Amino acid sequence: MSQDNAATMDIGVYGMAVMGSNLALNMADHGFKVAGFNRHGDVTREVIAKHPHPNMSGFYDLQEFVSSLKKPRRVVIMVKAGKPVDLVIDSLISVMEKGDVIIDAGNSFFKDTIRRFQHVDEHGLHYFGMGVSGGEKGARFGPSLMPGGSRDLYESLRPILEAIAAKAKDGKPCCTFIGTDGAGHYVKMVHNGIEYADMQLIAESYLLMKHLGGKSNAELSRIYHEWNGGELKSYLIGITADIFAEKDDKGSGELVDKIVDSAGQKGTGRWTSIQSLEQGVDTAMITAACNARVMSNLLEERENFSKRIVAPDSWEANENIVEDIRRSLYTAKIVAYAQGFALYRSAAKEFGWHLDLGRIASIFRAGCIIQAVFLDKITEAYQKNPQLASLMEDEFFLAKINENLPSLRRVVAAAASAGIPVPAMMNALSYIDTSRSTQLGANLIQAQRDYFGAHTYQRTDAEGAYHHAWQEHYKE
Amino acid sequence: MSQDNAATMDIGVYGMAVMGSNLALNMADHGFKVAGFNRHGDVTREVIAKHPHPNMSGFYDLQEFVSSLKKPRRVVIMVKAGKPVDLVIDSLISVMEKGDVIIDAGNSFFKDTIRRFQHVDEHGLHYFGMGVSGGEKGARFGPSLMPGGSRDLYESLRPILEAIAAKAKDGKPCCTFIGTDGAGHYVKMVHNGIEYADMQLIAESYLLMKHLGGKSNAELSRIYHEWNGGELKSYLIGITADIFAEKDDKGSGELVDKIVDSAGQKGTGRWTSIQSLEQGVDTAMITAACNARVMSNLLEERENFSKRIVAPDSWEANENIVEDIRRSLYTAKIVAYAQGFALYRSAAKEFGWHLDLGRIASIFRAGCIIQAVFLDKITEAYQKNPQLASLMEDEFFLAKINENLPSLRRVVAAAASAGIPVPAMMNALSYIDTSRSTQLGANLIQAQRDYFGAHTYQRTDAEGAYHHAWQEHYKE
Repeated sequence: MSQDNAATMDIGVYGMAVMGSNLALNMADHGFKVAGFNRHGDVTREVIAKHPHPNMSGFYDLQEFVSSLKKPRRVVIMVKAGKPVDLVIDSLISVMEKGDVIIDAGNSFFKDTIRRFQHVDEHGLHYFGMGVSGGEKGARFGPSLMPGGSRDLYESLRPILEAIAAKAKDGKPCCTFIGTDGAGHYVKMVHNGIEYADMQLIAESYLLMKHLGGKSNAELSRIYHEWNGGELKSYLIGITADIFAEKDDKGSGELVDKIVDSAGQKGTGRWTSIQSLEQGVDTAMITAACNARVMSNLLEERENFSKRIVAPDSWEANENIVEDIRRSLYTAKIVAYAQGFALYRSAAKEFGWHLDLGRIASIFRAGCIIQAVFLDKITEAYQKNPQLASLMEDEFFLAKINENLPSLRRVVAAAASAGIPVPAMMNALSYIDTSRSTQLGANLIQAQRDYFGAHTYQRTDAEGAYHHAWQEHYKE
Repeated sequence: MSQDNAATMDIGVYGMAVMGSNLALNMADHGFKVAGFNRHGDVTREVIAKHPHPNMSGFYDLQEFVSSLKKPRRVVIMVKAGKPVDLVIDSLISVMEKGDVIIDAGNSFFKDTIRRFQHVDEHGLHYFGMGVSGGEKGARFGPSLMPGGSRDLYESLRPILEAIAAKAKDGKPCCTFIGTDGAGHYVKMVHNGIEYADMQLIAESYLLMKHLGGKSNAELSRIYHEWNGGELKSYLIGITADIFAEKDDKGSGELVDKIVDSAGQKGTGRWTSIQSLEQGVDTAMITAACNARVMSNLLEERENFSKRIVAPDSWEANENIVEDIRRSLYTAKIVAYAQGFALYRSAAKEFGWHLDLGRIASIFRAGCIIQAVFLDKITEAYQKNPQLASLMEDEFFLAKINENLPSLRRVVAAAASAGIPVPAMMNALSYIDTSRSTQLGANLIQAQRDYFGAHTYQRTDAEGAYHHAWQEHYKE
């Protein structure tokens, strides 16, 4: 069936929308001969016409597309997550052969990837679920790649993946084998959850500087630019500086003020929150970020309540508020990553993956939205101690927390007094104080549970489970 | 097959562990002839021996158990949630007849109930999923009941259910038809989530009064008892007053101080949080309560961090701190219920249920753990306006929020300064401030999303979706 004499292409990409075509062009740039295919041939034709590349060819018949590939054949799928992925997999299984490899590079839910890994394996083919971060630009010029599948087989994909991946400052490609089956997509999912928290924290720092610090957009732009020269240096802080400097293209003033205060979300942040609840890991900051977007959509309700719930009439802001906010942002960021990486640690146990947390941090250093010098520090922390139970335990981060905690306390207290909603920062402080408190009042909760449901409790001074015959001390 | 001449029993209860036998005895008390059955006959024998009742008989053969029931037969299942329920249903289907009724009174997940409703219906039998709240004591002497299933059929069960249910102060039974298929178990699930938040808030008020107010256990007992005479009057506040008065039965001091600061959870709170994330409803306080229990289990890590993260060295507490805490507790409680009831509202749309929120609040007024005079106010709020979008919009609750908000601000600010973890109160304040803010910084988030992912944004002054060609304003 296959025309081996025509099999000259190194890799195929199924799905020629912007992410797929950009990934294909990236491969072509690096000397790999790429076959492009799309369910609707017109899409492929347009890509080939707009971006002609000597290493890239379009195919308009699935059989011909697959037959053009050297064996073992490798096809990267980049289509909409969900049902379309299953359909493409089954159509590929029908034309591919034992030993061939299918790589899903879309934003698939990791449990789907675990299921598909099994399904494809049963047909004698190999499957990879690969997280790809960095958006359209990343896909075109260097994304962060998180492949999960068979380790042995990874070696055969490695030259292509490492070639197209972003390179960190030390020259290392932002790509590493993550683990079996759904591990790659899991790591990508949590990466997105962390990204939600990162963005929410920056939004809160903006509100605080605007309302507590009285900063203008021009000042904000300069402040974020300044921050971007220090320990907060990151892609997101950099573009934030740009955003505040952008003039309105349809009127006067800055564009940021003309944008409706309502943020969209595609679901991966929410998946992370749900998964952390299922695993019993506290990722309150990611959940706070998801909820903040949900609440931002309730424009009418908020407009209504803004007139009916009374605003505080006065509050005090200290002179050093901008530096306090910078330190709060940095400290809360530590907590967000500590929560996300705690989730990885728990997932490694739960799903039997050997997740190398230091390497995971290292591949976030470039190519992706959350890239930041901060990630060098996380990489170092796990290099020093791969078994680190919490990122907050690392000497560097612990010192930062202790140094900055008074700032975070002041900022949260000021926000509470002034009525500025900073759910992510509040949850960061709450997480730190919960972590450092030997008394959370859980003794009372356990006493209540024993009182009304005979759930028993443990004693501080003796082993075993106890039930007490609680008395009514008061008569109405 | 059935021996109609022996069919004299009004209802059967399958599962003779403490919840099942208590529910059976409750029915027997109210004049219904109850057949009891358990997979292991010994359990039934022990119940009958320990609690002989003229209206209750034990059965030791499934066929005889079912045959003893008047037609249409009604069997209440009270077994462990999960697989056991499916097994019992299938064994009952094999011996019951068309038109018979199966009622699952366990803590089943509502999606399982939706599936089972369908499954039982396909066999020509009828199915109810019924939430039962109030623990062992409630089951025995009057629980709050949340039946979901066929409305027509509900009328035939009503006399028994209303007889055994708790009665509110106005004499009305704490039982109402909730909706079809999984509605009853859904309402029970969220009820439990609200219970988690309620308990967490009381735990936080305890920490605050102990650490900010320097109150002893004896003082705390008196304060909670006093609170229980006012607008906070509730079962949970009442038992909290009892708990602080309880002496250690194995040594000196109070028992509450000897209980390990680690709280268990059975999962329904977590289900609620997960479900709210799936529905896109912010129930941050319930999630905070679940996370607080999760964190309470990390005793070693907390002990470790307590020595390594520096505690704040000073803070100020105002003189009126106890009253501020009481007001904060009340206000945060409003938010917890507003979040839980917003979830009901969303679920009604999502699952096509006609949930009567006022009636739901009214059946929580007695029998269950969250019973409180507060629920009269919720009942009234929905009686006045069944379409209330948020509980916080009701005049009574809105006035309370405005009256108490300065207290909540002071308490959260003080907790932040003093390092006392109050995640539920912080999330309550954050929810209120988010609800009353027209500026959440979501405009910046949407600008970032458009910058890195071309996700587009909306303008405040024009219709449509816009994408901007963002510029880099700074060169490194």
